[in-house]
Amino acid sequence: MKRISILGSTGSVGTQTLDVISHYPEHYSVEGLSGGYNIDLLTEQVLRFRPKKVSVATKALADQLTAQIPSEIKVFHGEEGLLEIAAGTDADYVVTALVGSQGLRPTLAAIEEGKQIGLANKETLVSAGHLVTELAARRGVKLLPIDSEHSAIFQCLNGESLENIHTITLTASGGSFRDRTREELKDVTVEDALKHPNWSMGAKITIDSATMVNKGLEVIEAHWLFNLSYHQIEVLIHPESIIHSFVEFADYSIIAQLGLPDMRVPIQYALTYPTRMKSPTQRLRLSEIGKLNFREMDYDRFPCLRMAYESGRTGGSMPTVFNAANEVAVERFLRGDIKFLQIEDVISNVLAKHSAVPFPDLQQILEIDHWARQAAVHA
Amino acid sequence: MKRISILGSTGSVGTQTLDVISHYPEHYSVEGLSGGYNIDLLTEQVLRFRPKKVSVATKALADQLTAQIPSEIKVFHGEEGLLEIAAGTDADYVVTALVGSQGLRPTLAAIEEGKQIGLANKETLVSAGHLVTELAARRGVKLLPIDSEHSAIFQCLNGESLENIHTITLTASGGSFRDRTREELKDVTVEDALKHPNWSMGAKITIDSATMVNKGLEVIEAHWLFNLSYHQIEVLIHPESIIHSFVEFADYSIIAQLGLPDMRVPIQYALTYPTRMKSPTQRLRLSEIGKLNFREMDYDRFPCLRMAYESGRTGGSMPTVFNAANEVAVERFLRGDIKFLQIEDVISNVLAKHSAVPFPDLQQILEIDHWARQAAVHA
Repeated sequence: MKRISILGSTGSVGTQTLDVISHYPEHYSVEGLSGGYNIDLLTEQVLRFRPKKVSVATKALADQLTAQIPSEIKVFHGEEGLLEIAAGTDADYVVTALVGSQGLRPTLAAIEEGKQIGLANKETLVSAGHLVTELAARRGVKLLPIDSEHSAIFQCLNGESLENIHTITLTASGGSFRDRTREELKDVTVEDALKHPNWSMGAKITIDSATMVNKGLEVIEAHWLFNLSYHQIEVLIHPESIIHSFVEFADYSIIAQLGLPDMRVPIQYALTYPTRMKSPTQRLRLSEIGKLNFREMDYDRFPCLRMAYESGRTGGSMPTVFNAANEVAVERFLRGDIKFLQIEDVISNVLAKHSAVPFPDLQQILEIDHWARQAAVHA
Repeated sequence: MKRISILGSTGSVGTQTLDVISHYPEHYSVEGLSGGYNIDLLTEQVLRFRPKKVSVATKALADQLTAQIPSEIKVFHGEEGLLEIAAGTDADYVVTALVGSQGLRPTLAAIEEGKQIGLANKETLVSAGHLVTELAARRGVKLLPIDSEHSAIFQCLNGESLENIHTITLTASGGSFRDRTREELKDVTVEDALKHPNWSMGAKITIDSATMVNKGLEVIEAHWLFNLSYHQIEVLIHPESIIHSFVEFADYSIIAQLGLPDMRVPIQYALTYPTRMKSPTQRLRLSEIGKLNFREMDYDRFPCLRMAYESGRTGGSMPTVFNAANEVAVERFLRGDIKFLQIEDVISNVLAKHSAVPFPDLQQILEIDHWARQAAVHA
């Protein structure tokens, strides 16, 4: 029996994690759940999965939740609440499905406690990859990727040696606007941007897919997860999202992972690793799909991806700034404050103002993250 | 240093095995080579790779070869010669690249001596899968597949459990005539049949690709190599031969192996397993290929594949008969004795005359193989 806490249980990955768990009640128990503001859904989850601890965004929401659930379930809130769900339960496994760099401190706290990590919060590795990987190594904690691309790479590396990797390739659907020119991007609406062609995901990651920031964050995440140089990490446009990513080995043999786009597969694999179990997803039938298409990434069309590579190569605190500036830019776009193409301007302006600090510690990262967010508000 | 003997060194797989070995003289030595009738090439190979023993088809050819190579190299011939190269050298690894069921006895002899096997001679497993796999298990010998499809499956299974396999899918280019209807197959020539769209291979296997017998033999081979039921083994038309085959696991996650069609990759992997080394092949660039196509196998268009499945499911000596009848039918087609579509008639007629013997021993297999060949001459 694996005891699980989920940070971000009301989001897309969180709900799908609970869906997977619900198929295997004999294998998994839920120790803790943290939601944000969606009290209705969180109440439902608490009543169904009976965690011992639960956390929400604010004190007021905590009071509201307390009134609706059995009194033996402890309710927390705010950042302290996240830390409690991450590190203060009997869970041996924590799924980090928070959005953005708010996932950093709880993830580090869970690792410090020796809990295994199902990592869906890519911003954690982007903001503080050196701290997270170093702590995980020291505490003997395995970081099991939940992102479909990183799960694909992880699966392709089964039984292989990291030193035999020549390159890895992250596939990119191209996002909601993949068939538009830059000219056609000028006046796109939020509503258009939220229509991802293949994956049903949260708002932030859907916008990140359209800007290709998401792929950039994944490149930096892959750098840390698989200990690869940036020149070993390639990106390929693959509109169908069937090949989720692949590894090219020293002998130029390529191992790829494929499937229908369904996050429950990588989520379940992160839970069942190193074994596999029957999954609620549909089977992929390549004869029904008929064709898989591929084309080269265009870095002029998607400058955010170029900026992500540059930030990653610069290293130190630069990826922290890239990520924080993007988070604010996306919020500003979603509330109609800036246009779609201005997301990249905001990121670019904030990056230009920052001189990277090599090997920043947690305090420095949190300060630089804070500074970048402030800078992005008016950039 | 791995010491290697090659059965069938002058054929397509044999020459490519020596090509791979020539890139790593510090890792491999050649202990024995067996060629058939191509004395010029065999002489060249002997002078270059300096095996201690060598074998040819006949006494006359042996005398001819002896006159052209250093006297310390021992020359053998005929079936005894094959057995000597298979089991009578200091090799710890034997590549079985013979064509047809003549590979059976030498392969068994090599396994009996505890030598690891690089298996390119699929007819061996088809004719006597139960004997070969049982002996290999008993002698602790690993059968490392060299066929591109089986090497693909083998690579996809790295670090995975056989019990987590849901299905495997062998991809099929469709062979030289994939875009022709059955009507258009009536009067095809030998020359047309020998033009394989993707792979450069020997004559027998190229004809087998056009009839889809080759895929049928591979299905039976996969049954034995990976201990799968026939309903777990699927075949998919994939004209580009880029995805060499794939495994679908219990969670419907698919792991596939890809690369340009180049036999040196699976050959090298069978030699370097479980590690990998730089290979002489070109890198696959999916963005240059652009599209991968897939369509369902048509068992009416390719009845030989249906017959292969039926023979496999019947089991016992039936696959032996399927294989032997096909070998003779292909010979008859190549020398103009029968037309292309009659290959399937010959196989079908011989299969219809045979009642399968369950669990035949080696003697019975050799007798049934002999009977089927006789029957196929006039079928």
